[in-house]
Amino acid sequence: MEYNSFNQIDLPNLTVTEPNPSHALAFRRYASHAVARWHRAQVAAIRPHSDAPISHNFMGRVTDFDHFDLSEDLEIATWDSYPMGFLEDRVPADTPHKQLFMRQGDPDFQAFHHDLYRAVGRGRWWVAEQQPGPVNWAPSNPAPMPGMVRLWTWEAFAHGAEAVCYFRWRQAPFAQEQHHAGLLRPDSVDAPGLIEARQVARELAKYPDVETAQSPVALIFDYTSQWAAEIQPQGEGYDYFALVFHIYRMLRRLGQSVDILPPTAQALDGYSAVFVPGLLTIPETLRTALATCEGQVVTGPRTDLKTPELTTKVPLGPDLPGLDVTVTRVETFRPDVTLSLAGGGAVQFWLEDCETSADVLMRFGQQPVFMRSGARWHIAGWPDAVAARRMVTQVLEAAGLPVLDLPEGVRVRQAGAGRIWFNYANEQKDFGEISLPPAGVHWDAP
Amino acid sequence: MEYNSFNQIDLPNLTVTEPNPSHALAFRRYASHAVARWHRAQVAAIRPHSDAPISHNFMGRVTDFDHFDLSEDLEIATWDSYPMGFLEDRVPADTPHKQLFMRQGDPDFQAFHHDLYRAVGRGRWWVAEQQPGPVNWAPSNPAPMPGMVRLWTWEAFAHGAEAVCYFRWRQAPFAQEQHHAGLLRPDSVDAPGLIEARQVARELAKYPDVETAQSPVALIFDYTSQWAAEIQPQGEGYDYFALVFHIYRMLRRLGQSVDILPPTAQALDGYSAVFVPGLLTIPETLRTALATCEGQVVTGPRTDLKTPELTTKVPLGPDLPGLDVTVTRVETFRPDVTLSLAGGGAVQFWLEDCETSADVLMRFGQQPVFMRSGARWHIAGWPDAVAARRMVTQVLEAAGLPVLDLPEGVRVRQAGAGRIWFNYANEQKDFGEISLPPAGVHWDAP
Amino acid sequence: MEYNSFNQIDLPNLTVTEPNPSHALAFRRYASHAVARWHRAQVAAIRPHSDAPISHNFMGRVTDFDHFDLSEDLEIATWDSYPMGFLEDRVPADTPHKQLFMRQGDPDFQAFHHDLYRAVGRGRWWVAEQQPGPVNWAPSNPAPMPGMVRLWTWEAFAHGAEAVCYFRWRQAPFAQEQHHAGLLRPDSVDAPGLIEARQVARELAKYPDVETAQSPVALIFDYTSQWAAEIQPQGEGYDYFALVFHIYRMLRRLGQSVDILPPTAQALDGYSAVFVPGLLTIPETLRTALATCEGQVVTGPRTDLKTPELTTKVPLGPDLPGLDVTVTRVETFRPDVTLSLAGGGAVQFWLEDCETSADVLMRFGQQPVFMRSGARWHIAGWPDAVAARRMVTQVLEAAGLPVLDLPEGVRVRQAGAGRIWFNYANEQKDFGEISLPPAGVHWDAP
Repeated sequence: MEYNSFNQIDLPNLTVTEPNPSHALAFRRYASHAVARWHRAQVAAIRPHSDAPISHNFMGRVTDFDHFDLSEDLEIATWDSYPMGFLEDRVPADTPHKQLFMRQGDPDFQAFHHDLYRAVGRGRWWVAEQQPGPVNWAPSNPAPMPGMVRLWTWEAFAHGAEAVCYFRWRQAPFAQEQHHAGLLRPDSVDAPGLIEARQVARELAKYPDVETAQSPVALIFDYTSQWAAEIQPQGEGYDYFALVFHIYRMLRRLGQSVDILPPTAQALDGYSAVFVPGLLTIPETLRTALATCEGQVVTGPRTDLKTPELTTKVPLGPDLPGLDVTVTRVETFRPDVTLSLAGGGAVQFWLEDCETSADVLMRFGQQPVFMRSGARWHIAGWPDAVAARRMVTQVLEAAGLPVLDLPEGVRVRQAGAGRIWFNYANEQKDFGEISLPPAGVHWDAP
Repeated sequence: MEYNSFNQIDLPNLTVTEPNPSHALAFRRYASHAVARWHRAQVAAIRPHSDAPISHNFMGRVTDFDHFDLSEDLEIATWDSYPMGFLEDRVPADTPHKQLFMRQGDPDFQAFHHDLYRAVGRGRWWVAEQQPGPVNWAPSNPAPMPGMVRLWTWEAFAHGAEAVCYFRWRQAPFAQEQHHAGLLRPDSVDAPGLIEARQVARELAKYPDVETAQSPVALIFDYTSQWAAEIQPQGEGYDYFALVFHIYRMLRRLGQSVDILPPTAQALDGYSAVFVPGLLTIPETLRTALATCEGQVVTGPRTDLKTPELTTKVPLGPDLPGLDVTVTRVETFRPDVTLSLAGGGAVQFWLEDCETSADVLMRFGQQPVFMRSGARWHIAGWPDAVAARRMVTQVLEAAGLPVLDLPEGVRVRQAGAGRIWFNYANEQKDFGEISLPPAGVHWDAP
Repeated sequence: MEYNSFNQIDLPNLTVTEPNPSHALAFRRYASHAVARWHRAQVAAIRPHSDAPISHNFMGRVTDFDHFDLSEDLEIATWDSYPMGFLEDRVPADTPHKQLFMRQGDPDFQAFHHDLYRAVGRGRWWVAEQQPGPVNWAPSNPAPMPGMVRLWTWEAFAHGAEAVCYFRWRQAPFAQEQHHAGLLRPDSVDAPGLIEARQVARELAKYPDVETAQSPVALIFDYTSQWAAEIQPQGEGYDYFALVFHIYRMLRRLGQSVDILPPTAQALDGYSAVFVPGLLTIPETLRTALATCEGQVVTGPRTDLKTPELTTKVPLGPDLPGLDVTVTRVETFRPDVTLSLAGGGAVQFWLEDCETSADVLMRFGQQPVFMRSGARWHIAGWPDAVAARRMVTQVLEAAGLPVLDLPEGVRVRQAGAGRIWFNYANEQKDFGEISLPPAGVHWDAP
């Protein structure tokens, strides 16, 4: 596929078979830039008339355009947080998990987006719409467990939100959203969400303001890698968002507070551990930052195997100083198959054949799956929850970070000098001296 | 969504997101009226040339237009009864049920339509096409259990059919339906269905004529409620037809004979129990009839919560004299989730939060699920089979109706002064002194 | 559906309901002829300029046109053999089977196509593209078990391939197929497939040339029957290709070498057993050949019930001298249902009601399922693996052929005077004195 002039380039559709992946990726970049440029025109029209900060409300797991790019023209990033609707229609999780958290929403999906949009907003972010009760648009729409509207709100503030707004004030008695709960019922009586919103407002008044602070752990998220994975998944089980979220969830389950960083990050000073899963290509500035990072750096799976134009890097990647790993071949697997690892856990969906001089910490058969060379680590396959826990625990311990064995459904977030604890489980959970009822929130005296 | 003139109203499609549900419902009404008006034109063309009664053959679970409306121009309603084809392609039932009745068809689906089309035909109805053997159009097409053609025919006459016609006479050796059984094989030899048709003809000659008589139990069926539920299901598990059929099936399993009534019913005199599940809105004439009904009246779930234009009724419904229930919020659930009730059974798909001063007979947790206030009852959720049996049994007992604990697969229908018994099961069933072989039909001496 | 002139005949689409099956079949024949005529024009353009044999590479389970018809203009038939990609995306098998052979490919799918294309090429055939490692286009793409590239190559030569070519030489670092393995890695290092290709080349040099020889068992494969079954499956479980492949697999599991023959076969001399499953209509020349065949002849299920124009044969088929079977009715079944046979095994998907004077060897209830009249046999339903083993074993024993009870995953093929043995299983398998490691190949001294 060669072009002699720009005029020869069509849209990457209507091809006899699939289009060239490099062509498809270029189109995705173009489409994202078009959205950002259109948005810039809107901002330019407003600026002369107002000094107010300009924002935009993003959504959950929407990756069609590069949010980092668009938000350069915003003062504040905001997003619409619908924990239960999103659990049903977009959280990457299996049926038992969705049943378990049916009335709470996923324990990590909101936190992930709080951290993502804090990065998108360069520190300033809001929840523009907080789900206050059952909604109307998910496949099924139960009511939240009592206390969850309060918990979700606390979780947002724990991640540094400047504001949490509830959508909507009064449940509309007409049109498409007449089954979407508001803070008031359609007959203007207080709905359960309003009572919880009042409670959290009183509680927050007593909690010191939380300044945005750097977390000890960084995780890179890259919209281009999502597009590349959609264009060329190589296996039906591979999904970039799901992979990054999988690592994020394991960090949360082990008690970590996380910063999500764009691939354009220039410096990683102060991070004890940096995770770079699934990144299409490591940009030069990030490569330099990773090379000089004093913390632990974890690549893979599927990191830095391609050029920015979605062709294969030769010599074969990843290319990171201090990490001698060559991925000579990749395999993908039926989603109903797992490959057991000695010592516990398994690999699924994706596995790389690696040539390496690093220490091999985990193997599938003779094949290296988890490698370490000093403070540089590589994960060669998609680990299941058990394997991911083993891997992430080892990295955190090498980083000198405290690893918490939190009970199922319990999460914690460093907020200023204090910590805020959450219970997403259906029953009471105890951790050390902390006892959390269902939907319970607890904060250490900061 | 406001209109200043009729010219602004487009079809409810090609909208950016879903169309306004009120708009969508108006379109469904318009489309149904268009069918009825077109049909009226056909009838008007025929009348000057013939004094013969005019009919039309309806189908199973076709709800695209209001059959009550169209049939105002007919003398006789007829329908095409394909018990096995319909079991495979449209009966709302799970796989074990479909396996169990693979060669018999569903035990209630034909009966439901017999009763429905008896109402549509204002008492006069036929089976225009009776399945006489395997057909060609369902996903799979087994042969009926020996005796089922006879049983299906008896079931139709038990419900007051004036005639049962078999489709077709001879199996065609060509074209689309060459695997659709006839009463004759393609080589003109008698097919098994013909032998059974002859048998039932002989048997019927000895049975007294059955006049259409009022049943003790009434069940409201409303085409508009089906359209509204399709437009705004609120949960993937909610289906209006399936809900009404679910109540109908439970009434049959408890030995009842049922009249299906349109929502335009003006009087309910003589009914011991009236069930009104899922009705979008109770029309004023029906509300008056229900208010003055001397029998038991059962509303819900999802009854009378909306205006006829599919907006939310404020004050919150249902609105029925003698029943103090306010539905403050609705929830829907993943179809793989059930909510257990104390005392047995569960709720699934749909649950209403109710404020009530009625006696609460069944609860989920603290939440009222089944309420009674004298002869007025409300069901706040979609009951599973066990819960529905408990609820319907209590209503029937309050109505003074005999409740039969029929064996699995056995059904009975009052036909004139006698009763006709049917065995849809795969093995012999005994009930009191009656012993029914598979596909067995028994009639009490009338 | 009657036509008064050819001008009235439209394409069999845009009809109100499904088109007439005879019309649809005529269109499929026309489309196949169009492909063959277009191909003939290509060949005619090349012939004046070259004396080299002309070939074309076919694929796995592609039945859109009649390959026998097209290949009349070819000297050599070739095909692209992707055992693992095809296992995932087109082999008719269930999930456990696909998991079991995830790294080996199906044990019979390549062999079936080797035999099919040997017939298509009238004895001369190649593998034009042999999978040499993981590919990029199946839903999931694991790497082959070590040794499989060698085994697949041996299997092709055992079936009489003149050449096996590997696709591709070097894995491309760009474009759609950059994850499709080559014999070289993208960095030009030898890939595992190349090492195995070198090994098999050395081994083959020592093995005598294998001339194409007639096998003792023949199996008819007919493209028209596939089109007819797609047009009129009658049950969602019925698939002609899957039926023929099912019989082929059972013959392989019992140690047979098989010739696949077109329905235009004129003579069956020398065959000890001929299987004719699912053939739309037996052409007159084949009927004569079958009638005079000295071996065992097995019809059914669904053999010779139709005219070539996809109308029902009256008198009811099949029509084969020496076999008194009349199929009076056909049934199809939900794919989740099986009908158990006395003595073991079951029927699924399809069952014929037969009137017969033949000996009934297997029944479902009272219904004949497997019939024999001397050397003529009829199978009236789709047998599961257990029933098929019982049926095929009886036929082979009557034919005087040695029946091998091969271990799971082991296959054998007569190649010239010797036999070549293959182990597709995940573990070592022993058979008599032969011991085969996973991916093992063994050859008897010829």
